[in-house]
Amino acid sequence: MELAYLNGWLGPLEDAVVSVNDRGYIFGDGVYEVIRVYNGVMFAREEHFKRLAASAEAVQITLPWRLTELKDIAEDVLSKSGIKEAMIYIQVTRGTAPRSHLPEAGLRPSLLITVRHIPGIPPAVYSEGVKVITVPEFRWQMCHVKSISLQASVLAKHKAQQAGAIEAVFVLPDGTVTECASSNIFIVKDGVLMTHPADHRILAGVIRYFALEVADSLGLEVRVKPFNISELMQAEEVFITGTVTEIVPVSNVDGTVIGNGRPGPVTRRIYNGLASLR
Amino acid sequence: MELAYLNGWLGPLEDAVVSVNDRGYIFGDGVYEVIRVYNGVMFAREEHFKRLAASAEAVQITLPWRLTELKDIAEDVLSKSGIKEAMIYIQVTRGTAPRSHLPEAGLRPSLLITVRHIPGIPPAVYSEGVKVITVPEFRWQMCHVKSISLQASVLAKHKAQQAGAIEAVFVLPDGTVTECASSNIFIVKDGVLMTHPADHRILAGVIRYFALEVADSLGLEVRVKPFNISELMQAEEVFITGTVTEIVPVSNVDGTVIGNGRPGPVTRRIYNGLASLR
Repeated sequence: MELAYLNGWLGPLEDAVVSVNDRGYIFGDGVYEVIRVYNGVMFAREEHFKRLAASAEAVQITLPWRLTELKDIAEDVLSKSGIKEAMIYIQVTRGTAPRSHLPEAGLRPSLLITVRHIPGIPPAVYSEGVKVITVPEFRWQMCHVKSISLQASVLAKHKAQQAGAIEAVFVLPDGTVTECASSNIFIVKDGVLMTHPADHRILAGVIRYFALEVADSLGLEVRVKPFNISELMQAEEVFITGTVTEIVPVSNVDGTVIGNGRPGPVTRRIYNGLASLR
Repeated sequence: MELAYLNGWLGPLEDAVVSVNDRGYIFGDGVYEVIRVYNGVMFAREEHFKRLAASAEAVQITLPWRLTELKDIAEDVLSKSGIKEAMIYIQVTRGTAPRSHLPEAGLRPSLLITVRHIPGIPPAVYSEGVKVITVPEFRWQMCHVKSISLQASVLAKHKAQQAGAIEAVFVLPDGTVTECASSNIFIVKDGVLMTHPADHRILAGVIRYFALEVADSLGLEVRVKPFNISELMQAEEVFITGTVTEIVPVSNVDGTVIGNGRPGPVTRRIYNGLASLR
């Protein structure tokens, strides 16, 4: 059963309610994580909780829990849900107080943890690849923080959907490709695997990290440096990475077919390598 | 009594609760307005509701209410609160659904309206002026939308507070001054009143608009064009505008005293002119 834990309350997800004064609701003032569960076991649990702590620190939310406490709560909710193929959503907001940009000191952060079934992903996503579009980067410049102030990403996803695509790829004014609305992006160009460095322009995805590890272990040539939109369009292979979707081949960018229009061999090797880790 | 209206429910503000699946809570996916009430009457009511509709349209939230319905609800909540010197907060989110960037079509937006007392503002704010700091612009590039994805503004306000200031002024890489975290900014330089044009870089504030109207009616020379950080530092006068604080003189920017360090004559004339409108 899909469950929610909220500040000590535990119950069905659809019954969970929070004060309208929670700063998550009024200011998008929180951070979050999504963790994939395979057969009852969280994948890359340590990496996710470490990143949650880093996001909270970056926005000066002081966590009143030790990470081990948070992990225990998450494991407990997961176990009670009985869901084996799950996604765990963890959100920490600055706390609850009548609306004011600057809250009084000593607010207690709110903790939401939900456990849900993994959504069905059509097999063709992996066997055929997906379409993406490019959009000018217009998000804030702290993309290394997994913030819940996500309206820019929502709008970019809308734009992709309206174009019959599944993701929007952000491009800086100088042509540099950063990442997508909810995934990181890799290209294979002249046989070299490339992705943007983990700076303030991207969220350093956990699957991005493991994809790089797998590529290393396969002996692939890897360059973690920015690439531009023409390199993207002329790449032999393109794929995007995310916690729930893992490794998704991209067959089409802005209407231009990538490579031969089919998932390529490097993408497949990394996909398989990642699958062997869980 | 401070009240909240939420999707048909009306009660004490502190009792109002919303589903954790509301997209306002998970994605900051909503827009808002704050309206000042003087002696029981909303100031610039039409301008605020018009801007709410514009923000909603910009983020593709289709309002299921006519603006007259929204106004009627707001007037009703205001009247029931019995508060004469109030601020009305109106928030519309995309609706409620289990977390997914792209919700199913046909979600019904959520409507929150709260009525609260105006916070006490120390008289010295107006008689002495305030300190502000400058920060590099790092917000998203749709600042014309009054979005609830406000974490950047919260962090900028934090930074100001930590520096003993009350506002943060955003400055683009080329030195252009845009606006503040929750107010617009004006300077008087060589006798000319200047403020940034109402494009995607700023939220076109209602008090900003009336300040420009007042300046015109006073026969002041006005230039609605971008100014830069050296013009700001060397200005004869600086003031910031906002719905609740109205016109606030700035006496100090990044530690540099503005003019003679006291509220200037242009600021005072516009303050008085605005006061005469309500």
